[in-house]
Amino acid sequence: MSKQPSSKPPWGESEPLSGASYSAIELGLDNDRIFVLDQLALPVDETYREYGDCAGAAEAIRDMVVRGAPAIGITAAYGMVLAARAFSGLGADDYQKAMARAGEQLEATRPTAVNLSWAVACCLRRAASHAEQTGSDRHADMAELARQIHRDDVAACKTMGRHGAARLQDGMTVLTHCNAGALATGGYGSALGVIRGAVETGKKIRVLASETRPYLQGARLTAWELHRDGIDVTVITDNMVGHCMQLGKIDAVVVGADRIAANGDVANKIGTYSHACLARAHERPFYVAAPWSTVDAATAHGEEICIEQREREQIARVGGRQLLPDGVAVYNPAFDVTPAGLVTAIFTERGEHDPGDLPLGQ
Amino acid sequence: MSKQPSSKPPWGESEPLSGASYSAIELGLDNDRIFVLDQLALPVDETYREYGDCAGAAEAIRDMVVRGAPAIGITAAYGMVLAARAFSGLGADDYQKAMARAGEQLEATRPTAVNLSWAVACCLRRAASHAEQTGSDRHADMAELARQIHRDDVAACKTMGRHGAARLQDGMTVLTHCNAGALATGGYGSALGVIRGAVETGKKIRVLASETRPYLQGARLTAWELHRDGIDVTVITDNMVGHCMQLGKIDAVVVGADRIAANGDVANKIGTYSHACLARAHERPFYVAAPWSTVDAATAHGEEICIEQREREQIARVGGRQLLPDGVAVYNPAFDVTPAGLVTAIFTERGEHDPGDLPLGQ
Repeated sequence: MSKQPSSKPPWGESEPLSGASYSAIELGLDNDRIFVLDQLALPVDETYREYGDCAGAAEAIRDMVVRGAPAIGITAAYGMVLAARAFSGLGADDYQKAMARAGEQLEATRPTAVNLSWAVACCLRRAASHAEQTGSDRHADMAELARQIHRDDVAACKTMGRHGAARLQDGMTVLTHCNAGALATGGYGSALGVIRGAVETGKKIRVLASETRPYLQGARLTAWELHRDGIDVTVITDNMVGHCMQLGKIDAVVVGADRIAANGDVANKIGTYSHACLARAHERPFYVAAPWSTVDAATAHGEEICIEQREREQIARVGGRQLLPDGVAVYNPAFDVTPAGLVTAIFTERGEHDPGDLPLGQ
Repeated sequence: MSKQPSSKPPWGESEPLSGASYSAIELGLDNDRIFVLDQLALPVDETYREYGDCAGAAEAIRDMVVRGAPAIGITAAYGMVLAARAFSGLGADDYQKAMARAGEQLEATRPTAVNLSWAVACCLRRAASHAEQTGSDRHADMAELARQIHRDDVAACKTMGRHGAARLQDGMTVLTHCNAGALATGGYGSALGVIRGAVETGKKIRVLASETRPYLQGARLTAWELHRDGIDVTVITDNMVGHCMQLGKIDAVVVGADRIAANGDVANKIGTYSHACLARAHERPFYVAAPWSTVDAATAHGEEICIEQREREQIARVGGRQLLPDGVAVYNPAFDVTPAGLVTAIFTERGEHDPGDLPLGQ
């Protein structure tokens, strides 16, 4: 792994698939390495980490250099491209076994991200289908698949963004939480895709980004990418949302989702449920934007979704400063569940959905 | 100003007026210096800063070594004691003029704190009444007054704590926000006084302290003093309150107040209003505890209360770590206003009040 300066895109002269001048993740032109924007270094430094093998891709996911379910899935697919290259000398059977092990290595990094296992499964099916070809052809074919997964994700974001944008009016101030943006996807973003979609049709949209304690994705990442794209963004602490709504400073809320249950309940970053309650109390619409793959038909209700608990240190310390007395406990759930009844509409690449009536059978 | 190690109380063998083994502020036995617990160093270091003159007391308030309206008022009164000592050689007229200037110096530090100007006014009235006495007698008399202000504040906290404690049941988990505790008062605290009152009657109370971004008084101060006193406290980020209520982890909310309007609207630390809305949505009682002096009969409605805006840096940086991209704006109001209709009851040293029917004429 090596760091790249930010002065020019490390992926060379080609257009990045993200469609922007930055990208959470890109595959090099020769399909021999990946470039991952270091989200741990944002917003201070814009640097790309470069990885040449599947273990590196797994490391980038595990260490949260890249985060956001769709972006992780794409990184995993690119990791499988690097694996196909490394195993180009193997026979068909050994190739498939080696690819399966590579997939396990990637899946072990963050076992709860649905997109990660979905991407790995896609790549393994492709490995089975092309196992008899030459190593060079297998590698090229895997790269073709991974790039298609990346392109499809960006296209899905733009489509859901277009559906959501229809709900935002010119002059609105929109609250978003955490980062469901270009940095969390192949590009464009889900919740931020809705905002970009509205801005692209000429509407003037102002964004309030709640900082999203404890990991501060709103302050560090959402503010960075919107500011970078010239979209008006102001950061508030999470506890200011009620006050801002009371003063009429928020017209709508748009967030992403980590999982959507069959009944329309939405699991998303901790704090989302508080914001949804406040939106309801102040009669503001509350929208969710996510790829259709986020809808989990196997989960009937939000209550079935297991809420991951995170470490004390995330709350107890920021930037080397100790914020908590030794010995004091914290409670640190990473997600919460917003009941479908608080969600005005869900946008996916399939359209706008009534949360209580998702088209699961289609 | 010099720092004291925390191993033994710097005020000597006497019992501190705070009634605890620590104190936000104490006057030395010889009335010649004050000891201020350095709240900027908490929760890591428990050190007292020592000041020997009125300018030092003003510095402690201005630099937020001490904060919390009642604690600031007591610090100002003690500052006037040090001024009376410094001016003990002056004749009656010059003494009063010098004391008035000392009062102005103190009031200039944080002009919005009501208790500060109230305490200074008390001391100036006393200065007028004893101006003809000897310098030594004036100094002793001013010390007597300042200690009485301190004692009265602790007594008020205990009384409102007893009133509020009657509303808390054994086994409850209580959410509090910011720090309305011993560190913000002469001792015992207002909101935390309610919790201490319940614990002292043998009720088992568990406290959730919301960390209170951006200044983190909940994490740094409330957690410190409750942990120090052996009261069960767990810290959460502000955005977890809705989730905790949804899961039934919060039975009641108790907060302090910076100002209470005649109609019962409550101005308090930013985030209080969000918590109040969430308490209402989950049918949890929302209590406010504050000294009667916080009730401002001259302010008819909460809307008349000016909300102080704070600097960008508080949100943009923690512990030397830059959290925001350069050039991104923040919105940083220090307080919000909770309408009386969301407040279940207000506790003062006069008893429990219906927020919509405060006994203003009495």
